Amino acid sequence: MTNKKLTSLKKWLIESKIDCILLNDPENIAYYSGFKSEPHERILALVIFPFADPFLFTPSLEIKDAQNSEWPFSVYGYLDNENPWSILSEKIQSATTSTGHFAIEKAFLTVERYEKLCHFFKNSLFKNISEKIQEMKLIKDSSEIKKMIEAGEWADKALEIGFNSIKEGISEEEIVAEIEFQLKKQGMKEMSFETMVLTGDHAASPHGVPGARKVKKDDMILFDLGVVHNGYTSDVTRMAIFGNPSKEAEKVYSIVLRAHQAAIAAVKPGVTAGQLDEIARNIITKEGYGEYFTHRLGHGLGSSVHEFPSIMKDSELIIKEGMCFSIEPGIYIPGIVGVRIEDCLYVTKNGCELFTKTPTTFKSIG
Amino acid sequence: MTNKKLTSLKKWLIESKIDCILLNDPENIAYYSGFKSEPHERILALVIFPFADPFLFTPSLEIKDAQNSEWPFSVYGYLDNENPWSILSEKIQSATTSTGHFAIEKAFLTVERYEKLCHFFKNSLFKNISEKIQEMKLIKDSSEIKKMIEAGEWADKALEIGFNSIKEGISEEEIVAEIEFQLKKQGMKEMSFETMVLTGDHAASPHGVPGARKVKKDDMILFDLGVVHNGYTSDVTRMAIFGNPSKEAEKVYSIVLRAHQAAIAAVKPGVTAGQLDEIARNIITKEGYGEYFTHRLGHGLGSSVHEFPSIMKDSELIIKEGMCFSIEPGIYIPGIVGVRIEDCLYVTKNGCELFTKTPTTFKSIG
Repeated sequence: MTNKKLTSLKKWLIESKIDCILLNDPENIAYYSGFKSEPHERILALVIFPFADPFLFTPSLEIKDAQNSEWPFSVYGYLDNENPWSILSEKIQSATTSTGHFAIEKAFLTVERYEKLCHFFKNSLFKNISEKIQEMKLIKDSSEIKKMIEAGEWADKALEIGFNSIKEGISEEEIVAEIEFQLKKQGMKEMSFETMVLTGDHAASPHGVPGARKVKKDDMILFDLGVVHNGYTSDVTRMAIFGNPSKEAEKVYSIVLRAHQAAIAAVKPGVTAGQLDEIARNIITKEGYGEYFTHRLGHGLGSSVHEFPSIMKDSELIIKEGMCFSIEPGIYIPGIVGVRIEDCLYVTKNGCELFTKTPTTFKSIG
Repeated sequence: MTNKKLTSLKKWLIESKIDCILLNDPENIAYYSGFKSEPHERILALVIFPFADPFLFTPSLEIKDAQNSEWPFSVYGYLDNENPWSILSEKIQSATTSTGHFAIEKAFLTVERYEKLCHFFKNSLFKNISEKIQEMKLIKDSSEIKKMIEAGEWADKALEIGFNSIKEGISEEEIVAEIEFQLKKQGMKEMSFETMVLTGDHAASPHGVPGARKVKKDDMILFDLGVVHNGYTSDVTRMAIFGNPSKEAEKVYSIVLRAHQAAIAAVKPGVTAGQLDEIARNIITKEGYGEYFTHRLGHGLGSSVHEFPSIMKDSELIIKEGMCFSIEPGIYIPGIVGVRIEDCLYVTKNGCELFTKTPTTFKSIG
């Protein structure tokens, strides 16, 4: 699997007449090498050549982990008090005599690190490989989709735990604690982002943070969560209602649900990302809530929870089989109500399949 | 508090004859503006001028949150389908007529974003402000230290929960779940990094990941954890012993503990970071374990869990009152044993005080 991806990247390298690819994004390094690591402020690199073996370059405290991973090639390291750029440039120069053309991740590499690299390779040209990698990761194969289906099952499980924990007086952060506790006890290591549980008009903040606020009668409760499972992510949003919602909340919910269903029904190869956004946005705008739908319709996901494609207004990106993304319309009226409904899906030959199965029916709890 | 920091940054701006500071690191933006946000792949900026009011620039879905934060100045936003760089450059040009000299965070800004900025400000010079910010954040004032003391108390609480949960057959990930569940129920929102619980020789990986491995008799168990509390972090490492350790584990533990105590005893204004590292490293090296201490002695922490200063070999950085950092020597013998003992501290007039109080005595549990 990893080797197939690496082979395909190497093929591009040869065709593009690049002398050396230098990857620094830990997620992309994991994608191509199978070695997953969070180096914090330290430097981690995967270096690939057209005619020499690739190597991993890690902080010395990670060398053993990298050697014990599935990575079959060399691993080089550096101590905290050494200059990693000096050692890295030596290793590159030992592997190849031509270093005129580099490909680097301009969407990840910082200016400071770029300037250090330029210092050691003064006469080199640096091409951006970020878009090429986004493109390579855009279409998921069946083994990736299988992992994402499983990640979706975990997300459904998380929602069920969350729904079951709702009772009068429980706080947002207690519900978050309950969900993550049950999942971690079952072996789920990592959420794909900070689990979001927001009650009442608190849900009117699209990126709200759960707090001490307690569930009270007739609250709508927003759950937005996902997991990382075997290196692949899930992401889902559902609303639960504790008691009876207000007329306005009920109305807003039904509009968002219609937008959500209409966009999902329209997903198939050949449609553009912009058209999908338009279908959902038109429904919301016609009902007079357009100004309260303040974000794009969706985002891609895969080995990271936010990646290409972006499902947004005016995008001419053509949807293809194997793409994976979210559909998540929302209406956020400050101080009054916030509703979002989200599913992630993969595009099939004729339409799409959802990763999450939790019903979207307007269901009252308690 | 925030205003004092912002004022001090503005003073530097005027002295340095910079026309505009553009901050993009969400942690630094929170530090200077009080507005905390994780924009994921979207752009967030704090823009500061010598003679005009600063402003926040956020994705449109975060505008309300920013306006409701303690930030007293303007907030501008952009929709997902708009070009944020075009809007941001217009806002900058409306605020100031001189844009010849920018200060940007080269340690955070990506090359791709830098190139976009250069496109809109073709004739401008871009100075790096990252080191200046590191320097400003290096010395903590009493209100920051107070928050870090509280964050340390939470870390001690977390260790106690972890120790109490140890029993034969419980897995690493179940212990992690238990710790985070109890903390989150008590209102702790965020760990400062993925909680680490590693049993037996699994602890010989400095950046190991907790898994299904179960506690068995005579295991040493490593806990490395911390929380984010009111925007400030903690970080602590302790070993627990379930039963009776091997002779070698006991020996290694006592060496690491001696290194840890000796380094802490040496912390005071005037000593260099390199000297502290040397004191700990010499003890470990003299006992023949030097090659197994594969990382620096410590790292700074504050509003982020890894920041300046770096306590490492050969560093001539002079320790000053108000600096906060970890002391965490370790010995990692692959397949056999891993031991690390870590406390974070703040430097006082004559020495230092630890943020964490959990004893380091070699204590057997169960």
